[in-house]
Amino acid sequence: MNFCSDNTTGISPEILAAISAANQGSAMPYGGDDYTKEAEKRINDLFETSAEVYLVGTGTAANSLALSTVTPPYGSILCHKESHIAYDETGAPEFYTGGAKLTGLDGEYGKITTTGVEAAVANTRGSVHQVLPSAVSLTQSTEFGALYTLEEIKALCSVAHKNKMKVHMDGARFANAVAALGATPAEITWKQGVDVLTFGATKNGAMAAEAIIFFDKTLAEEFGRRRKRGGQLFSKMRFIAAQWNAYLTDDLWLNNARHANTMATKLSQGLNSIEGCQLYSPVEANEIFVIMTPEIYQTLINKGFNFYQWPGNIEGLCRLVTAFDTKEEDINTFITTAKAAV
Amino acid sequence: MNFCSDNTTGISPEILAAISAANQGSAMPYGGDDYTKEAEKRINDLFETSAEVYLVGTGTAANSLALSTVTPPYGSILCHKESHIAYDETGAPEFYTGGAKLTGLDGEYGKITTTGVEAAVANTRGSVHQVLPSAVSLTQSTEFGALYTLEEIKALCSVAHKNKMKVHMDGARFANAVAALGATPAEITWKQGVDVLTFGATKNGAMAAEAIIFFDKTLAEEFGRRRKRGGQLFSKMRFIAAQWNAYLTDDLWLNNARHANTMATKLSQGLNSIEGCQLYSPVEANEIFVIMTPEIYQTLINKGFNFYQWPGNIEGLCRLVTAFDTKEEDINTFITTAKAAV
Amino acid sequence: MNFCSDNTTGISPEILAAISAANQGSAMPYGGDDYTKEAEKRINDLFETSAEVYLVGTGTAANSLALSTVTPPYGSILCHKESHIAYDETGAPEFYTGGAKLTGLDGEYGKITTTGVEAAVANTRGSVHQVLPSAVSLTQSTEFGALYTLEEIKALCSVAHKNKMKVHMDGARFANAVAALGATPAEITWKQGVDVLTFGATKNGAMAAEAIIFFDKTLAEEFGRRRKRGGQLFSKMRFIAAQWNAYLTDDLWLNNARHANTMATKLSQGLNSIEGCQLYSPVEANEIFVIMTPEIYQTLINKGFNFYQWPGNIEGLCRLVTAFDTKEEDINTFITTAKAAV
Amino acid sequence: MNFCSDNTTGISPEILAAISAANQGSAMPYGGDDYTKEAEKRINDLFETSAEVYLVGTGTAANSLALSTVTPPYGSILCHKESHIAYDETGAPEFYTGGAKLTGLDGEYGKITTTGVEAAVANTRGSVHQVLPSAVSLTQSTEFGALYTLEEIKALCSVAHKNKMKVHMDGARFANAVAALGATPAEITWKQGVDVLTFGATKNGAMAAEAIIFFDKTLAEEFGRRRKRGGQLFSKMRFIAAQWNAYLTDDLWLNNARHANTMATKLSQGLNSIEGCQLYSPVEANEIFVIMTPEIYQTLINKGFNFYQWPGNIEGLCRLVTAFDTKEEDINTFITTAKAAV
Repeated sequence: MNFCSDNTTGISPEILAAISAANQGSAMPYGGDDYTKEAEKRINDLFETSAEVYLVGTGTAANSLALSTVTPPYGSILCHKESHIAYDETGAPEFYTGGAKLTGLDGEYGKITTTGVEAAVANTRGSVHQVLPSAVSLTQSTEFGALYTLEEIKALCSVAHKNKMKVHMDGARFANAVAALGATPAEITWKQGVDVLTFGATKNGAMAAEAIIFFDKTLAEEFGRRRKRGGQLFSKMRFIAAQWNAYLTDDLWLNNARHANTMATKLSQGLNSIEGCQLYSPVEANEIFVIMTPEIYQTLINKGFNFYQWPGNIEGLCRLVTAFDTKEEDINTFITTAKAAV
Repeated sequence: MNFCSDNTTGISPEILAAISAANQGSAMPYGGDDYTKEAEKRINDLFETSAEVYLVGTGTAANSLALSTVTPPYGSILCHKESHIAYDETGAPEFYTGGAKLTGLDGEYGKITTTGVEAAVANTRGSVHQVLPSAVSLTQSTEFGALYTLEEIKALCSVAHKNKMKVHMDGARFANAVAALGATPAEITWKQGVDVLTFGATKNGAMAAEAIIFFDKTLAEEFGRRRKRGGQLFSKMRFIAAQWNAYLTDDLWLNNARHANTMATKLSQGLNSIEGCQLYSPVEANEIFVIMTPEIYQTLINKGFNFYQWPGNIEGLCRLVTAFDTKEEDINTFITTAKAAV
Repeated sequence: MNFCSDNTTGISPEILAAISAANQGSAMPYGGDDYTKEAEKRINDLFETSAEVYLVGTGTAANSLALSTVTPPYGSILCHKESHIAYDETGAPEFYTGGAKLTGLDGEYGKITTTGVEAAVANTRGSVHQVLPSAVSLTQSTEFGALYTLEEIKALCSVAHKNKMKVHMDGARFANAVAALGATPAEITWKQGVDVLTFGATKNGAMAAEAIIFFDKTLAEEFGRRRKRGGQLFSKMRFIAAQWNAYLTDDLWLNNARHANTMATKLSQGLNSIEGCQLYSPVEANEIFVIMTPEIYQTLINKGFNFYQWPGNIEGLCRLVTAFDTKEEDINTFITTAKAAV
Repeated sequence: MNFCSDNTTGISPEILAAISAANQGSAMPYGGDDYTKEAEKRINDLFETSAEVYLVGTGTAANSLALSTVTPPYGSILCHKESHIAYDETGAPEFYTGGAKLTGLDGEYGKITTTGVEAAVANTRGSVHQVLPSAVSLTQSTEFGALYTLEEIKALCSVAHKNKMKVHMDGARFANAVAALGATPAEITWKQGVDVLTFGATKNGAMAAEAIIFFDKTLAEEFGRRRKRGGQLFSKMRFIAAQWNAYLTDDLWLNNARHANTMATKLSQGLNSIEGCQLYSPVEANEIFVIMTPEIYQTLINKGFNFYQWPGNIEGLCRLVTAFDTKEEDINTFITTAKAAV
């Protein structure tokens, strides 16, 4: 009954089976194997394009490596001020970019706006005394469980490109966004102008599998060296690739995400019906931000539920995250317990 | 029949089973789980000490992160000029240390000497115009399959410490060294003065599991942040820890290494008996460097054996690496094939 | 009639004479000369202490080098969101610190507050996922021409030290602050707890001369190497030192600053009396922020006055800076011209 | 009687006069002044081209900033193993390039060879595990007082470009090379294929004035931001520019260099005639490497001559550097003193 994060989950059985199945004989290291080739193909097929695909092991590395291709060291990345890359990566983007600046923008539910981007660009005066606005980064779904619509993505990409900036999408929960939007991966990304996506599988059923997908292939120049230098060129790459191959077989990725989203909807509806609980933001994917009374909070904790009180100034704000393996009965128990505590 | 490297291997069955077994329910992410605690304890027990232990996913990251703690950005690391960190990491140590210099020393079979270290230190003149010699790094077993004796390690540590330098040991093939030396892990490391070890399991049976072990705990200050920032704080850490726990159960690590070493001995003895093959260096662990005629080389390749011609100036030099899963029959076939090609 | 900045000025005659006078014979390079020793002594005498003093050529380098000693790469520097280091250095602090984060705080007239610092510290949750708050930086006088009182400095230092952070003071206009506060350099800095000061002379009469003064000498370890590596170890250091020696002779530094401040007061009083001009912030040193009508602005520009419209959202906001060589008659003409434009 | 280095000298009178003359009224900061425009034009006229020119204050910064444009962080710079950038800059090139590697090549008298460059390129195997050879750097005149001929420069540029590498020339003593070779600045640089030159004036009469000259203008993209971020955008740039303008007026640069070279020739001829002195390398510019007996060395030191014993393995090796202000009588005294000590 752990709602702390979707990364407290284990491995989807299909993915674990794929790791086992890949454990046959020898394979050339560092991605020179057939599993990796297959993963690259599967990802390209999913996105209906011909992108440069690189597999890595963590989301921090995926985002930071991707960002290192969209800004020079003397540049800046415009992102939400509470985005994961700005707030929860211990400066990994600054490290990988060689010291670029992350400019935090305001915006509801973790979403940045074209107005915010334009103001930030204007604020640099175009002078050598300010860092060069070089990229826009958006998280889909956001750190607050919200979604960018296709129109919003398109508008942000348009403003970015007009100002000679690249667009990065942090897709740690990309599958949840696809499931919720009912649009194709291509429609959510390159068809609107996204230049590079970090596509996460770890939170949605993999053991440790992330992909960096360069729709703008010019960004991928010498990226193999960047990945190696970052410590992300796994020698036994086939086992990361095998995770991807299972993830993209028979819509596992999508079904896992749909389940997580469904559970989130159910949970949020239940919470919404409880006096003493108040949804903080719309629940559009698999994260729920809810303000609850201390009594409800304490009762749930005492009953063995795990979830985070959210840092910041909003009293009683908690985050609940559902996942591919969330059990409906746990949702029911959670709601029943909360109701009883009122 | 792949002798390219010990990283072309798959996963030891015991380790794969441990990954599966760890796939039970939820676990707190980022190492806040019981598997990780167990791994830290097992590693400390193995080394008969109380060190700070951090698990990561690749050898590149393990070495580079460790090195970032033993030199400031304006310092240098003295290492063999053909060491992995100097030559095969695409500048990852430079990246992680913020631009420190790797000073390549000469030495037979990948081994540096106290004379070399002292000369390098003397060469800096103690002036602000030169980088500060801050650390010595040695690889055990070396990139050329050789071993440092306990006395050699002790002498190098002594010279390093006398000059206010720390000692890093690259233990990508540490298990092979332990198996060959017949000394304990403690005797090969901290008992001689090693300050930080990167202990690799990947080449010897794990899927992706490396450990950084700080015998000098002062080096580990805020290392959690360094690891995170490097993109090596795995959210589902339990699956890396589980690999370690299996690796250190019932001497799997040692038995795997012993097998690899035995196969290397057998293979080198066979090669030694062949006219047209000449061992380039003593075979002390699981790597064989052999000079062979073009005829022999071509015949072996044609028969489907995989192994590398070694870059550099020595004509006909090839490297063969044995591993935990090398089959004796493949060794026999290799030798028979080579013999027939003379 | 240039009020753009105090860096549009030339060199104080006394300082230029000192450069000429130092042009005698040979001198050991890189600061191994007597002029440099004298400068170090003069600065220590001025501050009534025994600090480590390093001379450099630009304020950007002075600040960035100083900051590199108070934060690790995985740390953060808490500073005003519109401070020079955060906004006007093109990421130089990020570069020199190896990628640390500058966390911008709010505050009136460029001044940060203990409340702001404490909130920023609390916001990091003490977790490895956030950068480590490592230093507080304050500008004296601020980028908006305001002053920190001794009590405010003391309180900020106290909060910083309580949270294991160091305190950096950006003293690009330190002399103006001393002149305005009527306190000693020591009282404004180390007596309140400041750990490192960047003391600028360039804006106040030097050609190019800045000093980094480590009151906390532990921060200065190997700083000679940091300075060299940053490209700031001038070979003919005597000519930077000579500027300092003249600057600190017969209170030139203080008299220059007093004149600039007096001119600013006079100018601000004049502006305050004009309908169509509104002082934006208290004028406490040598910078004036004033909101003026487009008519007044245009008239002044047409008459050949130079000054900046300030970027941001406040319509009509302009900055005027006075300096050691500002002529009273230019102030008078400025005011007369502005008045006539109403 | 200081032969330690040409940077123990003061300022050429003409240059000091120019600094004084530039001290008139206000000027826009950061290079937005007429002196800077004039310097850029003069430099371009001298080189008979239209290059991008940037002025900075130190040679370390000039070289390191220039190098940051010719290699990515995952690249390498091929240079002489005893070159200034590899050995005497405390890792500044590593710092400015974000961690690129300096690969030290062998070569007589500080000169690298096409053979050496080709071997280094070949040695990287073209794999992602090695840094990308990205630039060649040569010093003209070299750290051992030797000269590259036009043919040698052309050949090195050709090999570099064939391998997609850029060519950097460290011209700390470029004027001495021009004076010695009797070729034009253009012929020594871009006409042979040099992409970027760091042209030093400091050692040859300026106070602190270096220029980075991009013949390949694509390298200069956003270089203004790089310079600022490195702490080398001087606010009162006019005073650096004024040095350049005087330096390039009436062939001051060339006459200064000719004098230094002539003195070196005279000194080396004198030394050559002394038993107990043996020239170590050909004296082609203004540096002399001579092996002398302890008796001679000690006598000279006792008489008040200053010069360096050269670090390394060659007993008795000393370096003597002449400069624009070296007096012929001091040369004579030096030789007489040395002779008397035999």
